[in-house]
Amino acid sequence: MKPFKETLLEKVKETDHELLACFDRKFDTPDIIVSAMKYSLFAGGKRLRPILMKETCRCLGGDSADVKPLACAIEMIHTYSLIHDDLPAMDNDDLRRGKPTNHKVYGENMAILAGDALLNYAMETAIAGIPVDPSKTFHYTRALSYLAHSSGVNGMIGGQTGDILSENEAINEEKMYYIHAHKTGALLKAAVLCGGFVAKVTGEERDALETYSEKIGLAFQIVDDILDVTGDEKTLGKPVGSDEKNHKSTFVSLYGMASSQEKIRELENGALDALATIDHDTSFLEDMAKYICQREN
Amino acid sequence: MKPFKETLLEKVKETDHELLACFDRKFDTPDIIVSAMKYSLFAGGKRLRPILMKETCRCLGGDSADVKPLACAIEMIHTYSLIHDDLPAMDNDDLRRGKPTNHKVYGENMAILAGDALLNYAMETAIAGIPVDPSKTFHYTRALSYLAHSSGVNGMIGGQTGDILSENEAINEEKMYYIHAHKTGALLKAAVLCGGFVAKVTGEERDALETYSEKIGLAFQIVDDILDVTGDEKTLGKPVGSDEKNHKSTFVSLYGMASSQEKIRELENGALDALATIDHDTSFLEDMAKYICQREN
Repeated sequence: MKPFKETLLEKVKETDHELLACFDRKFDTPDIIVSAMKYSLFAGGKRLRPILMKETCRCLGGDSADVKPLACAIEMIHTYSLIHDDLPAMDNDDLRRGKPTNHKVYGENMAILAGDALLNYAMETAIAGIPVDPSKTFHYTRALSYLAHSSGVNGMIGGQTGDILSENEAINEEKMYYIHAHKTGALLKAAVLCGGFVAKVTGEERDALETYSEKIGLAFQIVDDILDVTGDEKTLGKPVGSDEKNHKSTFVSLYGMASSQEKIRELENGALDALATIDHDTSFLEDMAKYICQREN
Repeated sequence: MKPFKETLLEKVKETDHELLACFDRKFDTPDIIVSAMKYSLFAGGKRLRPILMKETCRCLGGDSADVKPLACAIEMIHTYSLIHDDLPAMDNDDLRRGKPTNHKVYGENMAILAGDALLNYAMETAIAGIPVDPSKTFHYTRALSYLAHSSGVNGMIGGQTGDILSENEAINEEKMYYIHAHKTGALLKAAVLCGGFVAKVTGEERDALETYSEKIGLAFQIVDDILDVTGDEKTLGKPVGSDEKNHKSTFVSLYGMASSQEKIRELENGALDALATIDHDTSFLEDMAKYICQREN
């Protein structure tokens, strides 16, 4: 059997092609803004969210082609959030995935607009993909609604707000869980659930996917916190130690390294247990959970 | 008959209530971000876009209630664009509608997030409004698609990009028309056309609405350019002379005051001529065209 990393690489390439296809059209706009959008969108992202979405759909018996516009949209949303997060008024980061951040290349004003444009284009792409086939419309729009909810003020943006408010402040467990569940968790959960919705999951399957995605979402963030302490700057493509520099409370600073690593194992097992209740071949999602818990960048 | 300004004031109040209702729910997010969103959304906007949308729908024989979620969405989109436009890295404005701009009150980081959150909430609201009644779904999603297109990189954001690029640069007629048609024109056109789509307009009606909206959109912008020279700071709620300060080429700087005023009359007549081809009572839209061409703030 092919190693999972190879399979994943193929899916990354496939996703890159699908994202490129979204830009294979004439734009009625000054070139620079499209260039700024593409600069960050094609800067070497891991494509975890769109891959999770398409593969969840496929594993649960759906056609992954049906969820493609939403998969492209979620990656654009993720990318816009990084562009705005890196701005001088936010985290003020110069480097992302080993490359200068968007505002370093295009200036702050274009970076703000490129972020806005990517969020808007995400929605435009996802809305344009609403199927006319009435047997599919409901399930797709259910997923579309869930995605819009998860990326917004009750999801990712809420998490970013909490994250900013918590800088230079010793936060408690509750606040840290809120930030983790929303800032990164909400979109990862949406990736999994949107895939499930388009595959027309049952209530039980939905519950299992919810548990799975919450566990891998939290594990993803704890690994992030650990890598910010122990990671290699070159492998990560960004400076380490930024949480300490920004006085951010993380899982590691609250519980220590050993407990954090133990928590990841616990979450990994919980995610796999949830998948075991699903009566489909979920091996890709199992491998994904292991990959997320063991990643080095 | 009631004077138009009174009728308009009633529609403004009605729209304010509908926008407030969008926030009459529990938010799972730190309060400050919702507060920042509401600060700008309820800062005394003229509500031209949502009113145009609902009234176009009604005039063309539709039920304006059907277009309500899109009408709320377009005002949120308009508001987010103002918040981001006012940022220090953009136009760096301290005053908007007579009040401190969003970043002056909440800080730059919250203003960026509040803008993002309003764009996202606009889409969330509009998507949640997709009707389940299959006889309405197509027309609504057609409008939704058009709105997402018009607010994006091929519409409003394209215009803002062009506007920023043209600062400190003497631009030609073609570029100025591009900026005007996109920065303000695109959303005003979307307001009218989305109302028309939901009212299930014919091809001829659509063409007439397109002409009408393009004419009033351009007139709106030329009036803006004129008011920036001749307007009263107190009535406008923002400083005058900002175009000259920012070295922006405007209709007035390119053609002079007399030609600009003549152009507005010409556009007003063109807009009214277009409406005359529509076999419905379009008196509200006629009054709106006159109001836009004769406004003082």
